[in-house]
Amino acid sequence: MAKGRILSGMRPTGRLHIGHLSVLENWKRLQEEYDCFFFSADWHALTTSFEDTGEIKENTLEMVTDWLAVGLDPERSVIFTQSDIKEHAELHLLFSMIIPLSWLERVPTYKDQVQQFREQGKDIMTYGFLGYPLLQAADILIYRADAVPVGEDQLPHLELCREVARRFNHMYSPVFPEPRALLSRVRLLPGVDNRKMSKSYANDIGIFAGPDELRKKVNAMITDPARIRKNDPGHPEVCVVHKYHSIYSPSELAGIEEQCRRGEIGCVACKKMMHESLDRILAPLRERREEITARRGYVREVLAEGALKARREASETMRMVREAMKI
Amino acid sequence: MAKGRILSGMRPTGRLHIGHLSVLENWKRLQEEYDCFFFSADWHALTTSFEDTGEIKENTLEMVTDWLAVGLDPERSVIFTQSDIKEHAELHLLFSMIIPLSWLERVPTYKDQVQQFREQGKDIMTYGFLGYPLLQAADILIYRADAVPVGEDQLPHLELCREVARRFNHMYSPVFPEPRALLSRVRLLPGVDNRKMSKSYANDIGIFAGPDELRKKVNAMITDPARIRKNDPGHPEVCVVHKYHSIYSPSELAGIEEQCRRGEIGCVACKKMMHESLDRILAPLRERREEITARRGYVREVLAEGALKARREASETMRMVREAMKI
Repeated sequence: MAKGRILSGMRPTGRLHIGHLSVLENWKRLQEEYDCFFFSADWHALTTSFEDTGEIKENTLEMVTDWLAVGLDPERSVIFTQSDIKEHAELHLLFSMIIPLSWLERVPTYKDQVQQFREQGKDIMTYGFLGYPLLQAADILIYRADAVPVGEDQLPHLELCREVARRFNHMYSPVFPEPRALLSRVRLLPGVDNRKMSKSYANDIGIFAGPDELRKKVNAMITDPARIRKNDPGHPEVCVVHKYHSIYSPSELAGIEEQCRRGEIGCVACKKMMHESLDRILAPLRERREEITARRGYVREVLAEGALKARREASETMRMVREAMKI
Repeated sequence: MAKGRILSGMRPTGRLHIGHLSVLENWKRLQEEYDCFFFSADWHALTTSFEDTGEIKENTLEMVTDWLAVGLDPERSVIFTQSDIKEHAELHLLFSMIIPLSWLERVPTYKDQVQQFREQGKDIMTYGFLGYPLLQAADILIYRADAVPVGEDQLPHLELCREVARRFNHMYSPVFPEPRALLSRVRLLPGVDNRKMSKSYANDIGIFAGPDELRKKVNAMITDPARIRKNDPGHPEVCVVHKYHSIYSPSELAGIEEQCRRGEIGCVACKKMMHESLDRILAPLRERREEITARRGYVREVLAEGALKARREASETMRMVREAMKI
């Protein structure tokens, strides 16, 4: 039996933080079982960054370098940039002709996001922003993907994609599978200040942060504010370091927790252990990234090769689409 | 000085009626003065015909055959099909990211047309229908056209196109001219039943109607209903035949009108003259069309050649656009 096919992408926001690591590890695992297409969604980046596009290209290169360092394998997966494949735009346009406006207006995230950006003094209510879930549908369906790894919050978008596939298949002829959701457990890591991790809060830890930066970030992690002296009893449930231990030091977690509650380990020592745990995981990734960046032009080659493979599939789908629509 | 550049297109509705003749004669004249791009807007046809696409391809071939018969010259003008040039879709997508939704919602024709189709029991309120003036802007700007021949009713669309050009040029860097309107006097011919001429009313006269069909259509023209006997005085102002004489028999018009008012010419004789006037104009076009259809595959060759030339220009514009947007 042929392998199933998966598509997933990320907006090019530049170098990734450890909040992205679980997504990438999931992608890496999926490579074993599926034919995978991974892409940098640079056209999607325009929906919110159309006034400031200067970094989009560089961000794609940095992000894809991170992907490769974590273990995405260009020999097995197709790794490419969305804007290299014009067929996404063509399919999006054709879909736009058959999709009721109301389907897009009722996407739950639409009004929320417009409102969120408005509060930041930014108007993103463009024609393209309304249509980006339809562009996502085109991104997925143009590779006739069988499944898409998604977080819970992305389910409404995937449902729209399935409805688009159904409507097209019903109106013309069956070209598209209805891609199913591969719900991936998202490991929500807080930023060092216990807010949502985000570059814009400067509370993020880069996957490839150097040893000094890593130490600085771990030291900045907020611990139990009720602990004044190091032998005060601690409350791990309010401590950021503890949340990180639960993921990065699973075998030592129970011991650390008990010592903390009894006031037998201070925050400084606890952070030192955290730093060691993190570094054990991140150091080999860092090394691998250095190997990759040492190969001048390698990432561009990967993307050029990926574009060739992606275009072959996308062209074939468009041939089927045009035949079905008789245009 | 380089020639100005013009773009214009028609939706492929199949063979044309004499209502289109003044548009085509205008295009023919424009070839003398401008570098012209004329295209079959087959993607636009989808906005209202997405449920019934079976005839779009054939309609393009028939329509372009008509264009050539009337005198569009593929040696001088670029004649092509919109869907052959994927760059239109790409530019449309990029524009969608920078154009406020409200600009499209306030296009005056939008709500009117939705309502009109609704009265016919047809829901055309798709995402693509809302966006088609933006697709038109992409159609025009991708060839960096200096001017567009339009009827008065098309002015709001051209104004939107100019606003899109201005916004892009201001936001990134100046890539697009702001195309100006070449207002063309539209000769509004009624159908034989004095309603608006339209294939769907079956009241149209094909440019290439055969002699028998032409006679039948002229005979079906509605004349002054108050005239019972042929020597009753007539009222040319309510007579369809008279409206056609005013265009196709200008030198005889005054005489015919006087004779009619005096009851000195009957409707049968008047229609006979009308038929002769029309045939004088249409017979050579009919002949030219036969020559064209005798050359098997010729129209497809014209369109293939046109696509090559159009794509060269469109690619160059997209190179400039990507450079300006830094993506």
